[in-house]
Amino acid sequence: MKVKPLGERVLIKRLEEESKTEGGIYLPETAKEKSHKGEVIAVGEGKKLKNGEIVALSVRKNDKVLFDKFGGTEVKIEGEEYIILKEDDILAIIEE
Amino acid sequence: MKVKPLGERVLIKRLEEESKTEGGIYLPETAKEKSHKGEVIAVGEGKKLKNGEIVALSVRKNDKVLFDKFGGTEVKIEGEEYIILKEDDILAIIEE
Amino acid sequence: MKVKPLGERVLIKRLEEESKTEGGIYLPETAKEKSHKGEVIAVGEGKKLKNGEIVALSVRKNDKVLFDKFGGTEVKIEGEEYIILKEDDILAIIEE
Amino acid sequence: MKVKPLGERVLIKRLEEESKTEGGIYLPETAKEKSHKGEVIAVGEGKKLKNGEIVALSVRKNDKVLFDKFGGTEVKIEGEEYIILKEDDILAIIEE
Amino acid sequence: MKVKPLGERVLIKRLEEESKTEGGIYLPETAKEKSHKGEVIAVGEGKKLKNGEIVALSVRKNDKVLFDKFGGTEVKIEGEEYIILKEDDILAIIEE
Amino acid sequence: MKVKPLGERVLIKRLEEESKTEGGIYLPETAKEKSHKGEVIAVGEGKKLKNGEIVALSVRKNDKVLFDKFGGTEVKIEGEEYIILKEDDILAIIEE
Amino acid sequence: MKVKPLGERVLIKRLEEESKTEGGIYLPETAKEKSHKGEVIAVGEGKKLKNGEIVALSVRKNDKVLFDKFGGTEVKIEGEEYIILKEDDILAIIEE
Repeated sequence: MKVKPLGERVLIKRLEEESKTEGGIYLPETAKEKSHKGEVIAVGEGKKLKNGEIVALSVRKNDKVLFDKFGGTEVKIEGEEYIILKEDDILAIIEE
Repeated sequence: MKVKPLGERVLIKRLEEESKTEGGIYLPETAKEKSHKGEVIAVGEGKKLKNGEIVALSVRKNDKVLFDKFGGTEVKIEGEEYIILKEDDILAIIEE
Repeated sequence: MKVKPLGERVLIKRLEEESKTEGGIYLPETAKEKSHKGEVIAVGEGKKLKNGEIVALSVRKNDKVLFDKFGGTEVKIEGEEYIILKEDDILAIIEE
Repeated sequence: MKVKPLGERVLIKRLEEESKTEGGIYLPETAKEKSHKGEVIAVGEGKKLKNGEIVALSVRKNDKVLFDKFGGTEVKIEGEEYIILKEDDILAIIEE
Repeated sequence: MKVKPLGERVLIKRLEEESKTEGGIYLPETAKEKSHKGEVIAVGEGKKLKNGEIVALSVRKNDKVLFDKFGGTEVKIEGEEYIILKEDDILAIIEE
Repeated sequence: MKVKPLGERVLIKRLEEESKTEGGIYLPETAKEKSHKGEVIAVGEGKKLKNGEIVALSVRKNDKVLFDKFGGTEVKIEGEEYIILKEDDILAIIEE
Repeated sequence: MKVKPLGERVLIKRLEEESKTEGGIYLPETAKEKSHKGEVIAVGEGKKLKNGEIVALSVRKNDKVLFDKFGGTEVKIEGEEYIILKEDDILAIIEE
């Protein structure tokens, strides 16, 4: 089964992040980041401008990205969880 | 009886999804996806741009799609339940 | 007395729908559709674009339509109840 | 004293409507219309488009109209009550 | 001291209105108008369109106007109270 | 240290205003103005239009202005308090 | 690891500010500024206009800036905390 995001949407697989500090200490609310790391699995064909033109997205398949925790929709595909969000909810590309 | 969605709207028949995990375990809120699977039954003639032009939709009849659970309007046609939503509430096309 | 809707508005006479299931069973909230069926009685001259142009509506007099229950304004004309709504609140045309 | 509405605004004198049914029966909320009938007393010079152009209004002095009960501002001119609203809050013109 | 409103803003001196009916009777909420009368003291140079052009305002110094009670900002200049509001909050010009 | 506001923003030093009436009487809420007086200390290079062009601001360094009490952000520079706001939150220029 | 902000976004490292007055006195709410100081670590390629064009940002790497405390998203990169925000949430550039 293949999932093709529509328009300016992107399919993302969340990458695990360690949820405790090295010493295992509880992090108070203000010290916790509000973003998640993920890998781009598939991208839509682009954003439709108001004049009907389509502009290709900036992120590509396999990009590692930081995205806003509060955007997007969770989807389950063949038992695996993914997130579909608009490119505008992606904050940055991580180059390692 | 035939139903012709207007403009950028799409008529969708929801496809059933199993609501429990394989072992029948209750899924906590954060683990449940917020999207539904459906089949496109009919599409509108396209989205009207601000300059009056009409741009055809990207989804087609018979497409399997993932759509946002919180968009659209439920309609009942000859005893069957459907959903009419704007194409922008469709997240992705599923190719099997 | 004749009522001429303004601009992109449409005058609709609601068509009755049976409010119980065949067996007369109460329908829980989630199983009830959120749309109504109606007949178009009169249409406005069209939608005004931002550049001042007017684009004719897609629905026509006598069309049977599905419309969103939460849009529009109820009006009473010579003792009869009607609804005036913007074409954008019409979901679909029904062809029988 | 003459009142000249600005831009896309219209000055309206509300026409009385009988508030009870013929038999004097109380009307429950859902059976009461949400619109009012009025007569156009004066109109503004037109709607300003985003490019600065002005487009004349569709309603004219002496037109009988239906308007949304929740739009506009009440004004009192020489002891008489009127309503000033934007043309977009006028639902329809009544031709008798 | 001279006050020059910026852009599409207008400086207005409110004109007193008698707050009781002729017979001194208390007016219930629904019978009270929601607008005020004022005199234009100074006007800004005009409204900036999205393309950067400036369009002169329709009201002029000394115009008597009706304006929405809920728009604008109160300012005190040399002990006197005024209101600065955008022209769009002015409902009508009064010609006496 | 020099602070250069970005785009359509303006750096303002608030000018003191006497907070009591001449006789020292308490002013009820409705009689208190909702604006403040200030001096323009620095201005951004201008407002970016939707087409990417930049239009210079109307206010200049040293202008005395009235601004809306509820707009802008307080900043502290070398121990002194200032306000940075968008030109659109400036109501008027005071010429003395 | 390198982080490349997307579009009109900027990666910022917050600069510490002393949170007490010189005498160590508690500052009441109204006397506390609502902005933060930071250093620009990386910038996106620019803001996408509605017509698809990209306009370069005004801030550059190494700029010291004042930004709104309530904008942006906190991110943690290799144990260090950063903020990613849209250029429009940057108030001013500090030149020392």
